[in-house]
Amino acid sequence: MTKQTGSHLMLDALLEAGVDTIFGNPGTSEMHLTAAIADYPEIEKVLCLFEGGATGAADGYGRMKGKPAATLLHLGPGLANGLANIHNAKKAGTPMINVIGDHTTFHKQYDAPLNSDIEGTAAPYSQWIRTVAEPTSLGTDTSEAISAAVSHGGQISSLIVPADIAWSDRKGKTPAFSVEREKVNPAILDAAIGVMKNGRKTGLIVGREALYGEGLKLAGQIAAATGATLFFPYASARVQRGAGLPATKRIPFPVEAAVEMLASYEQLLMIGAVEPVAFFAYPGKPSCVVPETADLLNVVTPREDVLAALHYIADQTGGDAIVEDPTPVPDPASGPLTTDTLMRTVANAMQEGMILAEEGVTTTRALLATIGGCPQHDYLTNVGGSIGAGLPLALGAAIACPDRPVLCISGDGSASYTHQVLWSMARHKLNVTIVICANHSYQILKGEMYRVGAMKPDGPRNPLLELDDPRLDWVSLAKGYGVDSLRCETAEELDFELRKGLATPGPVLIEAALQPVD
Amino acid sequence: MTKQTGSHLMLDALLEAGVDTIFGNPGTSEMHLTAAIADYPEIEKVLCLFEGGATGAADGYGRMKGKPAATLLHLGPGLANGLANIHNAKKAGTPMINVIGDHTTFHKQYDAPLNSDIEGTAAPYSQWIRTVAEPTSLGTDTSEAISAAVSHGGQISSLIVPADIAWSDRKGKTPAFSVEREKVNPAILDAAIGVMKNGRKTGLIVGREALYGEGLKLAGQIAAATGATLFFPYASARVQRGAGLPATKRIPFPVEAAVEMLASYEQLLMIGAVEPVAFFAYPGKPSCVVPETADLLNVVTPREDVLAALHYIADQTGGDAIVEDPTPVPDPASGPLTTDTLMRTVANAMQEGMILAEEGVTTTRALLATIGGCPQHDYLTNVGGSIGAGLPLALGAAIACPDRPVLCISGDGSASYTHQVLWSMARHKLNVTIVICANHSYQILKGEMYRVGAMKPDGPRNPLLELDDPRLDWVSLAKGYGVDSLRCETAEELDFELRKGLATPGPVLIEAALQPVD
Repeated sequence: MTKQTGSHLMLDALLEAGVDTIFGNPGTSEMHLTAAIADYPEIEKVLCLFEGGATGAADGYGRMKGKPAATLLHLGPGLANGLANIHNAKKAGTPMINVIGDHTTFHKQYDAPLNSDIEGTAAPYSQWIRTVAEPTSLGTDTSEAISAAVSHGGQISSLIVPADIAWSDRKGKTPAFSVEREKVNPAILDAAIGVMKNGRKTGLIVGREALYGEGLKLAGQIAAATGATLFFPYASARVQRGAGLPATKRIPFPVEAAVEMLASYEQLLMIGAVEPVAFFAYPGKPSCVVPETADLLNVVTPREDVLAALHYIADQTGGDAIVEDPTPVPDPASGPLTTDTLMRTVANAMQEGMILAEEGVTTTRALLATIGGCPQHDYLTNVGGSIGAGLPLALGAAIACPDRPVLCISGDGSASYTHQVLWSMARHKLNVTIVICANHSYQILKGEMYRVGAMKPDGPRNPLLELDDPRLDWVSLAKGYGVDSLRCETAEELDFELRKGLATPGPVLIEAALQPVD
Repeated sequence: MTKQTGSHLMLDALLEAGVDTIFGNPGTSEMHLTAAIADYPEIEKVLCLFEGGATGAADGYGRMKGKPAATLLHLGPGLANGLANIHNAKKAGTPMINVIGDHTTFHKQYDAPLNSDIEGTAAPYSQWIRTVAEPTSLGTDTSEAISAAVSHGGQISSLIVPADIAWSDRKGKTPAFSVEREKVNPAILDAAIGVMKNGRKTGLIVGREALYGEGLKLAGQIAAATGATLFFPYASARVQRGAGLPATKRIPFPVEAAVEMLASYEQLLMIGAVEPVAFFAYPGKPSCVVPETADLLNVVTPREDVLAALHYIADQTGGDAIVEDPTPVPDPASGPLTTDTLMRTVANAMQEGMILAEEGVTTTRALLATIGGCPQHDYLTNVGGSIGAGLPLALGAAIACPDRPVLCISGDGSASYTHQVLWSMARHKLNVTIVICANHSYQILKGEMYRVGAMKPDGPRNPLLELDDPRLDWVSLAKGYGVDSLRCETAEELDFELRKGLATPGPVLIEAALQPVD
């Protein structure tokens, strides 16, 4: 045991709050924190080769556990490398505590090479930021960082710790943290119950706790009792689905399809979600995807106590019944891999309790409409649109739930941002099966290029959208990280390897060689 | 040719200013920019799989060309992924123009998933930021972005372009850009000349233009005429060295060694550099590395016209002579690869005109003291301390100088941040030879852990500092990106493969299997 320092005080405060997992990539300014972490066998220490992997994994962990992981990041640039997945976590409402080392309080004035404005770097992507000013405030600051992270359904805390405060003698206490959440408005809940019973065609757009566990069951009972349909936004943090669970429909990414799905609804009520909008604007197309003629009611915001609201509403609407998703598991596929045969093969390999972490972009666009009747699973995806979330989410989910199989499906373009997490998966021998949908292009952007009117459908190849010269060899990349890997050309091969991968401990990466789309 | 849009106007302004190279990773909000870029065959288009590669490459390009490249980045998170290497470029004084797409002006209000505060994201890492407000201001905004980037020795401009402005009809003109630079103070130059001639032991700490080309020659003449020694800060942007050039000494990274190198100097004059400070603070060690007893004179800041100042001083001090580095090229090495045998092998393989892009951290710490007498070369390294610069610098330098061989030496830890650029090297068939110093640990942090007093030298292994479980297989990683690769165990093998790699077109990666240090 090393000498008790401020770092130990901080770790004790985190552990008392149940924060026992750290995804990190430290540097000189975090050496005392790093040394102190080694004094705690009860802390799960996950080293990531790149900070975007650490923050994305903390996102996946937080979504599955409902409590924060900590990240350990090296000054402004280390934080900057993690920002894109902090952005995704912030949009998902994931609780997360970023611990960022800084120069000592007395070295900061010299503007050494690594000096930068860390608070300014954190600001656009954090709800709570503080630089610890002195050793005696570290305990309070840590407790407040925890309180902020676990409040209002989950927030991003960024706690900046100068190196000399991390190495100071341990001083002061760690006050208890507290959980706050904005209160639901009972008058609005009563109004919503009245609206649900008015006989008009009703959609409930639900998010956060309404999409898993007890909240999902309650949402399903409310929908069944009132005849409403349950929708969830395209980008939702954690979605539980499958046989025996209430049916939920995902609002599609393409604005036209989203508009069409909701067009016939006379009223739409938001419960733990905000009004859905198009991911991007397209010339001549709407930014909002709800019908102009529909009545909209924001019943419960994500920052309010969604579960309490669901209990209140369900008590009033009554009934135990739910409506399951009638979608049958699709027929098994055979032959060359296409988006269709890949999707059907995945659907058939789904297992009870599986966690599906997905960033397949174009390849998996129709997947969610297909697997509603499969064995029960949790679905995690990129919520903030910042690409490079899929693999890190899988890492975090696997650390959070070591007894559950994790299937990660990613596009080849998206996986290229943060595949360093494959190494962490190998290091922790996690049961993650990864399918890389290899179409060797930014396929989504070819469609978007046309949809924004920048190119005709038969326009020339654009070198900034093609990944085929050279082709990425995912079997070799995975091997480089110590992850078993292989390539599949057909649905039959993929089916065999998926089942084998899921049944075998440790990670495996499957490159799914997709047929050319054009 | 597509319809003339705001995007074309912007690209014309860039081309008129000589900005003809774009390192990019676009998304939906940049589709019109991406389509317009394809209309210009004279633009070099370098797709990067990860934005940190794009910004680091733009840094390497800007340092070698002395003019900015543009980057093309996707909203706040795409910019965030590039920030760490923008930080390095900002510290290096590299001219760079970041073009960042944003949601359309009318979609921004809906806070869609990818919405974030882009100006806030750019602020800590840019000297100039603007969001284009309307199509008619795009031309002026672009010209001002260029002016800012090329002024004061090189700055970071961040130009945020909403998608509907990129797709608007072409409107307005592109005013000429202008170069500004802070003026040198002749009184201080005169004072400096007097000081240099006072017979005391003098060090000139030089940076920016004083480290290459005409400026280096002038600095060498000044040093020779006045008997001063030329030093350069550990983190300097571009350093030309080798036989026939003035000797320059690098101030070491370890604070003790830096203090020792400068201890005997009675006066230190800064020309294009600022007073050197320790990279980090260590308990009981100084933040400043210059002797307390020395007189310090800031003669020319990096923001001032360093070359003009050197001309002025050299005219007064007179003389054509320079003092070359007497360090002999070390004896060739043999046997197993260690930091010493690797260094000697590299020194013997150096070629006239080579660009050495280096982020070898511990392995290459003594390299610069060894190669001063080798054939003339340019040396680029990480200037802001944000790890993950080495490989991207090599990409940018190779694009900037396609006729010169590029040797990149990187630690295995550092290369893990941004090795996606290997793919871009393969795509452009660049003559880059990469040596990965594989010691399978964050070796520098083991030393730092001890030096900050967090651990005794014989302390236990810390899992957050070890990269050996599993070992990264760089031969496979490179192959995954389409880059030829092999592993060397001995100095003889490395010597053979280095010479072969440098003489062969296209990239090759050599994993140098270092003997364990302990």
